[in-house]
Amino acid sequence: MKILITGAAGMIGRKLVARLDRDGALGGRAIEALVLHDIVAPDPEAGGLAVTTLTGDLAAPGAAEALVAHRPDIVFHLAGVVSGEAEANFELGYRVNLDGTRALLEAIRAAGHAPRVVFTSSIAVFGAPFPEVIPDDFHPTPLTSYGTQKLIGEALLNDYSRRDFLDGVALRLPTICVRPGKPNKAASGFFSGIIREPLAGQRAVLPVPREVVHTHASPRSALGFLLHAAAMDTAPLGGRRALTLPGVGVSVAEQIAALERVAGPDAVALIDEVPDPTVRAIVAGWPTRFTATRARDLGFEADADFDAIIRAHIEDELGGAPGN
Amino acid sequence: MKILITGAAGMIGRKLVARLDRDGALGGRAIEALVLHDIVAPDPEAGGLAVTTLTGDLAAPGAAEALVAHRPDIVFHLAGVVSGEAEANFELGYRVNLDGTRALLEAIRAAGHAPRVVFTSSIAVFGAPFPEVIPDDFHPTPLTSYGTQKLIGEALLNDYSRRDFLDGVALRLPTICVRPGKPNKAASGFFSGIIREPLAGQRAVLPVPREVVHTHASPRSALGFLLHAAAMDTAPLGGRRALTLPGVGVSVAEQIAALERVAGPDAVALIDEVPDPTVRAIVAGWPTRFTATRARDLGFEADADFDAIIRAHIEDELGGAPGN
Repeated sequence: MKILITGAAGMIGRKLVARLDRDGALGGRAIEALVLHDIVAPDPEAGGLAVTTLTGDLAAPGAAEALVAHRPDIVFHLAGVVSGEAEANFELGYRVNLDGTRALLEAIRAAGHAPRVVFTSSIAVFGAPFPEVIPDDFHPTPLTSYGTQKLIGEALLNDYSRRDFLDGVALRLPTICVRPGKPNKAASGFFSGIIREPLAGQRAVLPVPREVVHTHASPRSALGFLLHAAAMDTAPLGGRRALTLPGVGVSVAEQIAALERVAGPDAVALIDEVPDPTVRAIVAGWPTRFTATRARDLGFEADADFDAIIRAHIEDELGGAPGN
Repeated sequence: MKILITGAAGMIGRKLVARLDRDGALGGRAIEALVLHDIVAPDPEAGGLAVTTLTGDLAAPGAAEALVAHRPDIVFHLAGVVSGEAEANFELGYRVNLDGTRALLEAIRAAGHAPRVVFTSSIAVFGAPFPEVIPDDFHPTPLTSYGTQKLIGEALLNDYSRRDFLDGVALRLPTICVRPGKPNKAASGFFSGIIREPLAGQRAVLPVPREVVHTHASPRSALGFLLHAAAMDTAPLGGRRALTLPGVGVSVAEQIAALERVAGPDAVALIDEVPDPTVRAIVAGWPTRFTATRARDLGFEADADFDAIIRAHIEDELGGAPGN
């Protein structure tokens, strides 16, 4: 079996490559080869598998065709310009997130072998106002160009699946937490920062009140969602290929309580509460919780609780022990 | 004020041109000129207004720019390949309904004068299963390429409006009934046929049980929706520019009872019940009723009842009296 991964140089892409290399199989079928694509050269940590890497703009003429020429059995389409960049650069966002996705789907349609396609959508397809808990049949009304582009990608994936050009699953991922690496300027960055920095013995800023509720998934569970989507029976999805995924819906206060249980009061003492009205206003426009009933019924498993999310970070990123 | 109409040669387009010519104004502002576009030459019945007609493929390079070069204050984007054709010809549907719409929106963005854009979407954005009455916040899950293309058009219109590139309103029109002209092969054709043909003294076939419920709007009320959308205050729409419009939700039995009230038992006697399981199955996948609360609150007015729909047909198409 061959697997194509776009966005392979990203955080989730790299973890996915490493995991596929370790497993050597997916859904009970041996993996022969990986085809990796990104705008920067992916750095494959896949010693045991044959790896082809391709670099460039997916929307450029011939780029998607060159990838699909490998006739992958499974396509993980992770590539995309992130939310802030798509908002700052209208044309770039549409080129990468819409034209790139469409070019990939069209290349797959032309190839004619109807692979499984797992597409990372986002909860950014939702826009305020919404209910306290968003049900699976709530309408997506994005308030960003990124969310709009993800919604269009979902719509195309649905139609191409209905036509049997491919066999698609679109995953609306919760916010990934604890996101490894350095702090970034994303408005959501503090959700990870207030856990990651204290565990590394560093101070972290909390810009919003502790009552703020948000839904999280660990990188480990995000990887589990991708692998499950790649191997699942898609017949029960019918014409509705987009799934809002389950996560851990908690308040910031509950996040901090979990940090104290896992790493003690010294870790919590490293959090500085510095209210930021701008961040507060942005976060107020984000959804808080989801029922995610359909995805749960289809076997997508969230982290057990926020303690488990913190422990996954310690095990996967810190070698099993906090650095402080 | 200048007004651009795409799809100007279609049934609604022609009625819109005639109405604008008669009114000479829209929303209290005098109309100076009309720019009409279609794939076939529009036949303007607009004696009193300056009319420019352009013919061709809206998705062709430069076509949309040539239209928008007239700097219309209002754009009615009615053009599109219909449902059956978009389903039969995948590439044509995407070219006209997606690429054509995107080309128009991009030309408007480049022009920079942010006109009002009224886009005819469709209840085809909805796909079974759905509740008996569809609320305004129910998720669109199209089961046709046409519905997918309309949904993508709505998403683009929302994002371009949010960015202030234009000031958009997307109208999810109910089924138009009584549709004038000859019977066509659309699966929904009988909803109009069982009224139109008996009023003209012709026999009509009813292929579904009388219990089937569907929501209708007269061509007259559809025109009213377009004019209201062109002149309304869009501020209350916020980021949600797509409106499910109100109509008359009735069973076929209620349609027939209305026909008897308006035109007598002789008209009803011209309906032949010939069950067609194929049509029955198609219709079973269609939505039945909508709350359309938002659109009603924003001043969009449905026909009073199905009797009014029949009377509008008699007045507007039959010179005030049934032909039988």
